[in-house]
Amino acid sequence: MRNVKLIIEYDGTKYNGWQRLGNTDNTIQAKLEGVLSKMTGENIEIIGSGRTDAGVHAYHQIANFKTHSMMSVYEMRDYCNQYLPQDIVVKEAVEVEERFHARYNATSKKYLYRIWTGRIPTVFHRKYTYYIPQRLNVEAMRKAASYLIGEHDFQAFSSVKSKKKSTVRKIYAIDIHKEDSELNILFHGNGFLHNMVRIIAGTLIEVGLGKMKAEEIPEILEGKIRAQAGITAPAQGLFLYEVHYGE
Amino acid sequence: MRNVKLIIEYDGTKYNGWQRLGNTDNTIQAKLEGVLSKMTGENIEIIGSGRTDAGVHAYHQIANFKTHSMMSVYEMRDYCNQYLPQDIVVKEAVEVEERFHARYNATSKKYLYRIWTGRIPTVFHRKYTYYIPQRLNVEAMRKAASYLIGEHDFQAFSSVKSKKKSTVRKIYAIDIHKEDSELNILFHGNGFLHNMVRIIAGTLIEVGLGKMKAEEIPEILEGKIRAQAGITAPAQGLFLYEVHYGE
Repeated sequence: MRNVKLIIEYDGTKYNGWQRLGNTDNTIQAKLEGVLSKMTGENIEIIGSGRTDAGVHAYHQIANFKTHSMMSVYEMRDYCNQYLPQDIVVKEAVEVEERFHARYNATSKKYLYRIWTGRIPTVFHRKYTYYIPQRLNVEAMRKAASYLIGEHDFQAFSSVKSKKKSTVRKIYAIDIHKEDSELNILFHGNGFLHNMVRIIAGTLIEVGLGKMKAEEIPEILEGKIRAQAGITAPAQGLFLYEVHYGE
Repeated sequence: MRNVKLIIEYDGTKYNGWQRLGNTDNTIQAKLEGVLSKMTGENIEIIGSGRTDAGVHAYHQIANFKTHSMMSVYEMRDYCNQYLPQDIVVKEAVEVEERFHARYNATSKKYLYRIWTGRIPTVFHRKYTYYIPQRLNVEAMRKAASYLIGEHDFQAFSSVKSKKKSTVRKIYAIDIHKEDSELNILFHGNGFLHNMVRIIAGTLIEVGLGKMKAEEIPEILEGKIRAQAGITAPAQGLFLYEVHYGE
């Protein structure tokens, strides 16, 4: 049986996320499965590298599915792009070894959080950035981010309520880059808890606005209490940016 | 009386253009006039540098209006951006001399036509580009464009039906630039007839696809028959890019 890996780009604005538990078809996974099932005549189930929430976008989501189809991977890619809604695109389809699993084999991920800042809002990026008219102190945000690098228990920075699973994750880097009116925060870690990127982004924003101090971050990590961290930054600014496999 | 110049950015997707004759309020001009009238308590009429058609965007439209308001131009800009829909932004408001007229004083304009080309469609630029999956011959397009530079009667490249007004215009430059999947055509001229940029873009695209030859352009110019030129490229790829004043 063939195992096909897809690289997918999507505008999450109008979807209930990658996968939603419950009876909704308004998810990116459901749209892809519908087209792939029609394409192959099989009942295709796809495995994503992870879920993205309602309204979150992806430059580079990875998924895989098993099929007996004899189509070439290029025909598959083009078929998908012909029948998928315009806000979901298969950038690449490639055959991989049978044991490849998009979720279990992912070793690290990058997420990008995009902020539009300054007195003048943006028209063309309005659905893909979080608009903050006030001035952000980028140096303070970098200082705050530095406390989060490394292996920590990120419970305070997540919406995870159950205490059954580990909330320890490792962040390799948080790069904050400002160019003109756009401020980008790029996160690289071995995995992220539910809402973790958006809560860290929201916390860094509050530091940037002077509502919190960078030096409070170690206490918040230690306290493990969600309410002590900052707001959950809105979904529209968040992009799944890269998924890495291998060592 | 004060004369205020506005630099405006808009996403034209859901509007019936800058100005529409007839009884519709769904125009960019009407939205601006509504907000400015509320802001000043006066019945504001604005003068645009020119109309843009339904679905056409602007990075840089210029307009002006007269007012007795005592607000600062910064307060005006911020008021507009607070009350305008998110797809229209006032980038700058500046006070100009009383005789400044956004339409009569415009000496040249730039329009940008954006094409997304290649096997992989785009998600994030889908509303701001015309998608052409086939390969375009850029050199042939540049050759075709070269015949259009200079002063010509552009009747064949316009939707103008009346023969009362001159259809002679001067094009200073047509720059074609390709980077990755995006092909941009930047037009600079002393003025453009109705649909002229979109018909030239459509003709260049047909040359790029091999459906027409660059060498046919001089004949089409001379024949002055609209049907001999190429298609009218869709509005969604077109942006009013700059408006120049002065010598």
